[in-house]
Amino acid sequence: MELQTAVEQLKTLQAKMHAYYHAMELIFYDSVTAAPPETDVGRGHTMGILSEERHKLFANEQVGELLAYLASHKGELDKQTAREIEELQRDHAMLSRVPVEEYVAYTRLLNEADNKWLKAKNASDFAIFQPCLEKIVAFSRKLAGYYAPEKKPYDALLDQYERGATMESLDQFFSQLKAELIPLLERIEAAPQIDNSLLQRPSPIERQKQLTQYLMDIMSLDRRYAAVGETEHPFTVEFNKYDVRITTHYYEDNLFSSLFSVIHEGGHALYELNTADELMYTCLGEGASSAIHESQSRFYENIIARSEPFLRFLLPKLCELFPENYANVDAENLYRAVVSVRPSLTRIEADEITYPLHILVRYELEKRLIGGSLSVADLPGEWNRLYQEYLGVEVPDDRRGVLQDVHWAGGSFGYFPTYALGSAYGAQFLAAMQRDIDVWGATAKGDLQPVTAWLKEKIHRHGRMQLPADLIVHATGEPFDPRYYIEYLKEKYAAVYQL
Amino acid sequence: MELQTAVEQLKTLQAKMHAYYHAMELIFYDSVTAAPPETDVGRGHTMGILSEERHKLFANEQVGELLAYLASHKGELDKQTAREIEELQRDHAMLSRVPVEEYVAYTRLLNEADNKWLKAKNASDFAIFQPCLEKIVAFSRKLAGYYAPEKKPYDALLDQYERGATMESLDQFFSQLKAELIPLLERIEAAPQIDNSLLQRPSPIERQKQLTQYLMDIMSLDRRYAAVGETEHPFTVEFNKYDVRITTHYYEDNLFSSLFSVIHEGGHALYELNTADELMYTCLGEGASSAIHESQSRFYENIIARSEPFLRFLLPKLCELFPENYANVDAENLYRAVVSVRPSLTRIEADEITYPLHILVRYELEKRLIGGSLSVADLPGEWNRLYQEYLGVEVPDDRRGVLQDVHWAGGSFGYFPTYALGSAYGAQFLAAMQRDIDVWGATAKGDLQPVTAWLKEKIHRHGRMQLPADLIVHATGEPFDPRYYIEYLKEKYAAVYQL
Repeated sequence: MELQTAVEQLKTLQAKMHAYYHAMELIFYDSVTAAPPETDVGRGHTMGILSEERHKLFANEQVGELLAYLASHKGELDKQTAREIEELQRDHAMLSRVPVEEYVAYTRLLNEADNKWLKAKNASDFAIFQPCLEKIVAFSRKLAGYYAPEKKPYDALLDQYERGATMESLDQFFSQLKAELIPLLERIEAAPQIDNSLLQRPSPIERQKQLTQYLMDIMSLDRRYAAVGETEHPFTVEFNKYDVRITTHYYEDNLFSSLFSVIHEGGHALYELNTADELMYTCLGEGASSAIHESQSRFYENIIARSEPFLRFLLPKLCELFPENYANVDAENLYRAVVSVRPSLTRIEADEITYPLHILVRYELEKRLIGGSLSVADLPGEWNRLYQEYLGVEVPDDRRGVLQDVHWAGGSFGYFPTYALGSAYGAQFLAAMQRDIDVWGATAKGDLQPVTAWLKEKIHRHGRMQLPADLIVHATGEPFDPRYYIEYLKEKYAAVYQL
Repeated sequence: MELQTAVEQLKTLQAKMHAYYHAMELIFYDSVTAAPPETDVGRGHTMGILSEERHKLFANEQVGELLAYLASHKGELDKQTAREIEELQRDHAMLSRVPVEEYVAYTRLLNEADNKWLKAKNASDFAIFQPCLEKIVAFSRKLAGYYAPEKKPYDALLDQYERGATMESLDQFFSQLKAELIPLLERIEAAPQIDNSLLQRPSPIERQKQLTQYLMDIMSLDRRYAAVGETEHPFTVEFNKYDVRITTHYYEDNLFSSLFSVIHEGGHALYELNTADELMYTCLGEGASSAIHESQSRFYENIIARSEPFLRFLLPKLCELFPENYANVDAENLYRAVVSVRPSLTRIEADEITYPLHILVRYELEKRLIGGSLSVADLPGEWNRLYQEYLGVEVPDDRRGVLQDVHWAGGSFGYFPTYALGSAYGAQFLAAMQRDIDVWGATAKGDLQPVTAWLKEKIHRHGRMQLPADLIVHATGEPFDPRYYIEYLKEKYAAVYQL
């Protein structure tokens, strides 16, 4: 084979894979934005076929040979192509071990599960979802065995979302968090509590939508390529770097739910929009990992938007849009209300201190589910017990408990820890960023361009060119260190609660 | 080959074709409902690849052999499978003659054209669209040559949308219409004119949306499988018979635009929703032809909804939703306003009498464009001249003139005549239906079930099991006869205008 021809075949293969990805992601996006409620059968039919076609296209011997040939000529290839081969060889090895009929059955199962989960959640009845979740857990364990037979199943799954993450590294990470955050939470709870009732003042949804547009402007989300929709659970999807969709959910009595979700998803969207053009239609044209992705969304949401300078900047806009709510509120009050700590039932509404504890619950549960020491039937009870233990809250029903998140219905076991990792990465990025630019000076003016430019240069533009651990060293000058996160939280909340 | 195996291969092939269809139609649907404005490049990339994969899957020798083998065993097959083979052999013969690279280039061109057309329309500047349209015309002529080299190009294209339609048959059809409708229009214009200003009363869009839901209820559009969206130009798309989307467009000062578009698209949707289950995922699981499809949408829109009994039934609902507008309007006035005839610039807003003349203009122009006797550069001038000649209206700009419809940007040369044919089919269906059921008695009560049941039994459930001409005979007991249409129009409008 001629090297140039082989490289062309490699690019064509990736472009095709990308087209299937686009189609399948859009089918998912449509299912939660525009599709009528009982359309999952036809969607499952199509998803099954497209995933099978995609699997066949990639997980075959010729592709294996092509990749092996190219890998043996790595020295003659440009850096990007060499890196593509690295990633593709890994995926190829994993996927080739999954029989196509199982891969397709799994795709169909997940399509069905999404619908079942929503029904169960609406009815607040875990039993509706339980049989489906049992199948997903069994399938996930099986897939883990195909992906990395030498690893423990949950380690194999973790590696899907954060390369290099293991139960060992995460146990250590979470035990550090637990050791610091549970005492911190106790001290906060012992301190005088902050009245945050101003957050619940009724805010007309039409005005909230105007605020969304304003926030997207502040974040410089280019509306030629980025749009916002509405879904039950906010998320971001990119079909390519020039076609990114974020979603949010509006609640009349919870303006800040939508406000922070827009900024969070906007952070994901900026990452995709800022990926280098030359990575488009390749396997590198997306975020480096789930945790790095979450580090970006949570950076904008928590570090930037939940800061005193940003809220001081935003307040006049809030007064303009909701004059009856904020006329008598000053920036200090708004900031204290926004960052006030309240152990609660719901992950996505949680404050920065309790958030990692919500994740800890999920991490421990899915580790045991996939490890086989917890049955799906016992999951709700264990969920409720851990919420009591770590957060001190009683779970009144499955809807606000074990059914609150879609992730497990999507087969995403191993994803949750990336939220906590991402938060921790973000704090380390902040420390490095502050050495280069005046983060708070710019933020106080509502100018997020310097922050975004820094993140673009250090992280966004590289896509998946580097592994997460390397990217962190490249961006911050040192390996990942959770101390930055712990210090960030302690310092911020000690000041707020005058501890 | 074993017959049973071959049949299974045939079903699998169709299911795969359907999955690609679903993905590509959804990409189109998304592009006009939710996509950010400048996302056509990435979409074109994906559409190009998917259409290529779909082409390769179908237009190859093995499929040709499979079909030939099955065709030679037709006597041993059930009726549905035999009919599938008939349709697929025809498509296979046509598509196999189109080189895959041209097919893909055409898909990409159409994706680009949609965007260009919208820009040109918004700027009211045909020049923006002209180069693109020139390419589409050239491509369409080329495709016509591949499809049916023995036919004149426009005949080959007409046959795509209405099997058996030719310039000869359509020239005859339209000359009959012209001979009857232009004098009828003159008599109407000479009669005392109807004041229809009540149609323009401002109607809050939120209330219009409530009316949409009400109309969908009246039509028994099952919301588990049918949803409504908003687009510039209303349309219907089905991903399968259990996933149908209609769209509409709301104008504050034109309630009836949205009202009739919902009923029109609802008619298309009912056709799809009522197709027999066993035709799902096969090439027969859609409407028999474009004209038959239009016959259904226009039946509900014009024959049912633009009738005195229906409007009398609807008036209380209009009074409830828009009390300030209809408190002093009686049903007779509403009916006369709704059916009032006004030569105008815009096809989709046209009354029943001038509508076929709008189609006639398009038919004559596209016949000449594809025939080669009209250049794209001369199209706007000819458009304006014919509007003056047939409708007596002066076209002030391209936006309201030659750029008003998306069809040519979609490469749909030969589609427009199906609107007029569909209207004519509908009148013949009405005559047959009235022999079986009390159409107006039920309509007066807002009960459209008997009408829909009749259409489902005679037309909807059959999908593409029969050719349009056969379906008409089957449904009405006689071949298509445009006299029903002409009589329907003459009778209805003679009564309204007391001619």
